[in-house]
Amino acid sequence: MSSTAGQVIRCKAAVAWEAGKPLVMEEVEVAPPQAMEVRVKILFTALCHTDVYFWEAKGQTPLFPRIFGHEAGGIVESVGTGVTDLKPGDHVLPVFTGECKECRHCKSEESNMCDLLRINTDRGVMLNDGKSRFSIKGQPIYHFVGTSTFSEYTVVHVGCLAKINPAAPLDKVCILSCGISTGLGATLNVARPKKGSTVAIFGLGAVGLAAAEGARLSGASRIIGVDLNSNKFNEAKKFGVTEFVNPKDHKKPVQEVIAEMTNGGVDRSVECTGSINAMISAFECVHDGWGVAVLVGVPNKDDSFKTHPVNFLNERTLKGTFFGNYKPRSDLPAVVEKYMNKELELEKFITHEVPFSEINKAFDYMLNGESLRCIIRMGA
Amino acid sequence: MSSTAGQVIRCKAAVAWEAGKPLVMEEVEVAPPQAMEVRVKILFTALCHTDVYFWEAKGQTPLFPRIFGHEAGGIVESVGTGVTDLKPGDHVLPVFTGECKECRHCKSEESNMCDLLRINTDRGVMLNDGKSRFSIKGQPIYHFVGTSTFSEYTVVHVGCLAKINPAAPLDKVCILSCGISTGLGATLNVARPKKGSTVAIFGLGAVGLAAAEGARLSGASRIIGVDLNSNKFNEAKKFGVTEFVNPKDHKKPVQEVIAEMTNGGVDRSVECTGSINAMISAFECVHDGWGVAVLVGVPNKDDSFKTHPVNFLNERTLKGTFFGNYKPRSDLPAVVEKYMNKELELEKFITHEVPFSEINKAFDYMLNGESLRCIIRMGA
Repeated sequence: MSSTAGQVIRCKAAVAWEAGKPLVMEEVEVAPPQAMEVRVKILFTALCHTDVYFWEAKGQTPLFPRIFGHEAGGIVESVGTGVTDLKPGDHVLPVFTGECKECRHCKSEESNMCDLLRINTDRGVMLNDGKSRFSIKGQPIYHFVGTSTFSEYTVVHVGCLAKINPAAPLDKVCILSCGISTGLGATLNVARPKKGSTVAIFGLGAVGLAAAEGARLSGASRIIGVDLNSNKFNEAKKFGVTEFVNPKDHKKPVQEVIAEMTNGGVDRSVECTGSINAMISAFECVHDGWGVAVLVGVPNKDDSFKTHPVNFLNERTLKGTFFGNYKPRSDLPAVVEKYMNKELELEKFITHEVPFSEINKAFDYMLNGESLRCIIRMGA
Repeated sequence: MSSTAGQVIRCKAAVAWEAGKPLVMEEVEVAPPQAMEVRVKILFTALCHTDVYFWEAKGQTPLFPRIFGHEAGGIVESVGTGVTDLKPGDHVLPVFTGECKECRHCKSEESNMCDLLRINTDRGVMLNDGKSRFSIKGQPIYHFVGTSTFSEYTVVHVGCLAKINPAAPLDKVCILSCGISTGLGATLNVARPKKGSTVAIFGLGAVGLAAAEGARLSGASRIIGVDLNSNKFNEAKKFGVTEFVNPKDHKKPVQEVIAEMTNGGVDRSVECTGSINAMISAFECVHDGWGVAVLVGVPNKDDSFKTHPVNFLNERTLKGTFFGNYKPRSDLPAVVEKYMNKELELEKFITHEVPFSEINKAFDYMLNGESLRCIIRMGA
């Protein structure tokens, strides 16, 4: 057992006191893990759009003060009662959604939408007692999606921790906690293009590029990137994108442009923007008879997906996915191995790196559209 | 060779001279088959809603005089040049769509939407010369979907004929030419419920009951029939339907009723009405995480399928199918064998039988909602 087990740990955390205001580096108390919980020392974390979205708190119920962060890699410090799968020293990736291994979803081969631990962005407390494990001088600081990795130590439900190969470099594989796995799995697990397929990727941010990486790994012969920003094409080539379409450059709908480029449509498409129009285009650009479109991007609350039902009857398929259909505990270790085997390339996603003390720079890079992923080193 | 090969055959046919007017029994001339064509002696035909729809000609370009009919069983009388797969005496089912075996769709494992022979309801002539093989005293009579089985003899493209086991009773297996295979295949080939699954079937006409039969064959534990006519439930029990929901009996949307009955939704649903609201309900009633909805019914031209995209993102799948995803030549013979093995039950679909001379009665039975399938005996 570590010397800190059972004790409150005082450490540094980047606290969001108010929506949209820079995070403030604070000393926080982190309570010991309770039943089925694990306290993790975070070594590296990254910033994802979802952190920024809930930090800006536009249109959602704001929950502050809060510790954001959900893409990370760390080492188990101590475990609460009932935890048998993990022990101090294990290397883990915290995940914003979970896998209880008991519910119908966890027992289904197809679903990863665990009834107990499915993402809940409104909850700022732990399930066991409905309270936070973080405090500053007695004031509770809320959790974020059960991970709160913008802290040197955090407490996570055991069902939200993937135990990975301890040889894997945490400053690289930490980005598999969310966005990269989401895009990669959308292609590998859901769209499943065959070798030689034609694949369209809508949105060339980190998730879309990870979807393109999945198409590259699948042996797609043509990967058509679609984005409103033509500057993204050059970077996208590294991820296997072979052709580029900017819908702004065309008078006709982009689905028609793609159909013309591909003799009737692509074999697979993956939508990674969340724009409702892109969703409709992504569906309508797949070939009749066999085309499969996969939705990844999260839409606005009031959006409505509309299409003529004959587009379905002509043997097209539309599927949605959540976290690339990966079950966090069962499947992420194998994704890490894909990187260790040099099959999956992660370095190209990491465009920036900052010490923890400069975490607000990571927000600036993302807000300015400069970064794919910025790694935040906790030790410094 | 038969003695009639190469000759014009004079025989009886039921001709539709005008939209919505009773068919008239006429003596027609049936020209010999040309390249890649086959002349077939029809022994039994059945009436399908699609015949009635195009006979009524509401909203489509009317093409008259025409010989309807596309569910049938017959025997090859003679073959045109280039036909190597069939010979006189072979037992065949004519199909309204085809399989050229050469195009991308035919070569795809997934599609059955042949580029050359896909259903074309506007074309009233044969592909080879753009002319009809039927005439009355020199006046051409148009074909219907390449089959025109309301005639003692008809000419069909070889790609639209499934060669079947000659031991199969044509007065039963003729109904596999269209509606029954469409519903059956929607479940067996596209929805693919696992043993023990819960399946909802929207619309309990012949196609919906065939979809239920597919669910029964798959070992579904609960088959929920949905129809606006509660009288259909009793008949539907024969097809494996275990529970019944009439949307008119509920104030809340039927998808919510089904979700409550099934702890969150069915595993699979199959939509066989063509009503846009039923399509939306069929999609929204499947369980998140793994639910698959399959659209079969043909919508109106101006319909728009609308749903919140989060329904997809929660890992639901929506697929459409055409002719149950069966490739007519490659797959129908095995469906006939399912009947021969007593796995698939066809007798229960056949509610009426009339001699050819009384074919208009078959229309009346269908229009009055009395029949599932009415067999028309050509010999009498």
